[in-house]
Amino acid sequence: MKLRENMRINAAGHLEIAGCDTVDLAREYGTPLYVLDEEMVRYQCRAYREALAEYYPDSMVVFAAKALMTMAITRIIDEEGLGLDVVSGGELYTAYKAGFPMEKIIFHGNNKSPEELQMALEYGVGIIVVDNLLELERLNKMALQKGRKASVLFRLTPGVEAHTHSYTQTGQQDSKFGLGIRDGVAREAITHALTLPGIEVKGVHCHIGSQIFDIEPYKLAVNVMFDFLEELRTAAGFEAEILDMGGGLGIVYHEGDQPATIEECVQLIAGAAREEAERRNYPLPKLVLEPGRSLVGEAGTTLYTVGSIKEIPGIRCYLAVDGGMADNPRVALYQAEYEGLIANKANRKREKLVTITGKCCESGDMLIWDILVADPEPGDILAIFSTGAYNYSMASNYNRLPRPAMVLVQKGQADLIVARETYEDLIALDRVPARLRLQQFSAVSGDRP
Amino acid sequence: MKLRENMRINAAGHLEIAGCDTVDLAREYGTPLYVLDEEMVRYQCRAYREALAEYYPDSMVVFAAKALMTMAITRIIDEEGLGLDVVSGGELYTAYKAGFPMEKIIFHGNNKSPEELQMALEYGVGIIVVDNLLELERLNKMALQKGRKASVLFRLTPGVEAHTHSYTQTGQQDSKFGLGIRDGVAREAITHALTLPGIEVKGVHCHIGSQIFDIEPYKLAVNVMFDFLEELRTAAGFEAEILDMGGGLGIVYHEGDQPATIEECVQLIAGAAREEAERRNYPLPKLVLEPGRSLVGEAGTTLYTVGSIKEIPGIRCYLAVDGGMADNPRVALYQAEYEGLIANKANRKREKLVTITGKCCESGDMLIWDILVADPEPGDILAIFSTGAYNYSMASNYNRLPRPAMVLVQKGQADLIVARETYEDLIALDRVPARLRLQQFSAVSGDRP
Repeated sequence: MKLRENMRINAAGHLEIAGCDTVDLAREYGTPLYVLDEEMVRYQCRAYREALAEYYPDSMVVFAAKALMTMAITRIIDEEGLGLDVVSGGELYTAYKAGFPMEKIIFHGNNKSPEELQMALEYGVGIIVVDNLLELERLNKMALQKGRKASVLFRLTPGVEAHTHSYTQTGQQDSKFGLGIRDGVAREAITHALTLPGIEVKGVHCHIGSQIFDIEPYKLAVNVMFDFLEELRTAAGFEAEILDMGGGLGIVYHEGDQPATIEECVQLIAGAAREEAERRNYPLPKLVLEPGRSLVGEAGTTLYTVGSIKEIPGIRCYLAVDGGMADNPRVALYQAEYEGLIANKANRKREKLVTITGKCCESGDMLIWDILVADPEPGDILAIFSTGAYNYSMASNYNRLPRPAMVLVQKGQADLIVARETYEDLIALDRVPARLRLQQFSAVSGDRP
Repeated sequence: MKLRENMRINAAGHLEIAGCDTVDLAREYGTPLYVLDEEMVRYQCRAYREALAEYYPDSMVVFAAKALMTMAITRIIDEEGLGLDVVSGGELYTAYKAGFPMEKIIFHGNNKSPEELQMALEYGVGIIVVDNLLELERLNKMALQKGRKASVLFRLTPGVEAHTHSYTQTGQQDSKFGLGIRDGVAREAITHALTLPGIEVKGVHCHIGSQIFDIEPYKLAVNVMFDFLEELRTAAGFEAEILDMGGGLGIVYHEGDQPATIEECVQLIAGAAREEAERRNYPLPKLVLEPGRSLVGEAGTTLYTVGSIKEIPGIRCYLAVDGGMADNPRVALYQAEYEGLIANKANRKREKLVTITGKCCESGDMLIWDILVADPEPGDILAIFSTGAYNYSMASNYNRLPRPAMVLVQKGQADLIVARETYEDLIALDRVPARLRLQQFSAVSGDRP
């Protein structure tokens, strides 16, 4: 197993991330703890921008906030000059409150509510990605009422399937997302949209999947998109200003994972787009890429405290930690494979085969099946790598476990960016009708005085 | 598809639950909305108590709070005279604040933290279920420091597998839960515990799985538990006061689901326990059962508003609602099959085949594959049945979707028992380090003034 970039083992034999001793972090902030390496997030942002600057200057990198969103992260994304892809009113609100420039926001989603569309117009969101006809009509009306035009892209289903988990395949024709190219639905919708006074069609978008290693399907997708753009130019005289190829580049979760690099991915998509445009004599559209996982995934590490270690003779040794599927549901959801080490014994030989499990009352609450660790004992700090994406963002209060805190680390300094939930937070929205309250209890919430 | 008990279609053609028009509920409280039928929860509680009163009077029914816990539900459980099974400090805290009698609490979990054990002792929890040796030692020490004894059960793995989803099988030997019977670990641990001055061993516990339809394995489990108790009596002269057989009885999610009834399940377990005790001349222990899902599952219904309806010619019609895997992750996690209907068209013919999907940006965000509904249109209210268990309790803020509100319905009256999360709630724990803040923004949170 390789340490992630910007990790090292320090003189105390502890795992360090961006100069911060993880054992100290666990002591100071408690566990479970999400640790996010700010330097690595910035590095990944720049890798996209620099590759695009080289291969396709008229472009924008947009962070897919659903992978990991907090106000502080939104600030970093802004400082790095990226745009933001939001998929709900909640994400939009977070970006708004963090001061993110609204014109650099792209609003996605297969079923935006009327309230969310209103909010997007009121905040002045840059681009709304139209997924379906209902939304198109609603948006047209709302924009007209405000006496303006909404700038939109259309989400298309190119019929290209990435080789990934079926839950994260999104480009195929049988998808809840977007409008079909093959069946003519997309052409018809855009041709119609061009006649709507409240809509300004800026271009098209597709997204073929998530955690993609084999990037060849992107090339095919670019080809399909340009085929469609050419068809649209012929049919409606429309030329796209923007081509948004979505995100999906995979990361290393586990030894043996070999995703393409950011540069390879950008080069392939940019090259394909240039080639397709040139071949068809199509004015080069602005290229948008929307990475999520590849910006924050490997920058995240979760620290846990080891509790019970249970040796079942001849069968398995279960090592239980103080978190689990509530803070990382990806193992139960996608059979994701993680790796990690005991942070306070990072330079010791890893010889003990264990299975790492959480503390939820559920057999599916697993973190890592079969991993070698160094001489595990209760109280050890276990670090699991590559938990930056889709861990905090998918976390629940299952078993009424408070969600972990998150710290941002850089140059040996740690800053709290998400405070740990308290027990009080867990009951903050509970209401007890008067008829169910105990006499001596609070008139408001019904709780123990 | 059959309506659940206590549902009917009213004169307006709307679905009614416990006398409340669901379309009115959606209008008043918004959607997505969890609706919990209080009468049905109480009815199910009584079904367990009455069956036990008949077949095994010295007994206790304990609600497995992890299925669905709020302060109001805790009050109902108390009013119905049941005990409470909690699995974390968060659940214990909720019960405490709701005024639940602490002596009727059973504290489970495969990896309780030292803080949780302390809390259990301080609150005066009735029984702590010891899962492993680390916990036993910690508990003994803590109890001694307080000058008292902790009453415990031991969780055992009987090596009995229920026929259910592998994530919810818990009785097999290769399990993170409990101490093995076959390998002698359990006997050794209890024999040791009997010598500990801070521990009072009250009995044993097992739990063979969840969403169980075929109840025969319970009989086998009772047999294995008594074999073990007999062995223990011979080896250590110990006789158990309490036999806790856990929970796991299944419910109807979908047409064709045919779980045993509560009475059949109680009768089988009670009969087996009596028979085993008599055969061995073992003093009848107090019998504890711990249902979760079967008390609240079918009592819960989720209401959604229909948004986009997308016909993909020759492939599928996707009907998108305003919730999804964030409020009900069970479809993605366990491939759970649900059913439901359009609440405002409940008496119309169901002729349109659709697939119901959520609004999360993820292909795995499905609610129901292939269901017939009545003439769906945007704005319709869709009701999905049997969502009372493991929906709210597993809900997340994925895509920064606020978690739904929950109302309790009875006799035509609705009471809010969980307030809807707001956008403000979503950012309440976000912190922005000073160095990342925008100049003109708040000094405290960093947000827009």
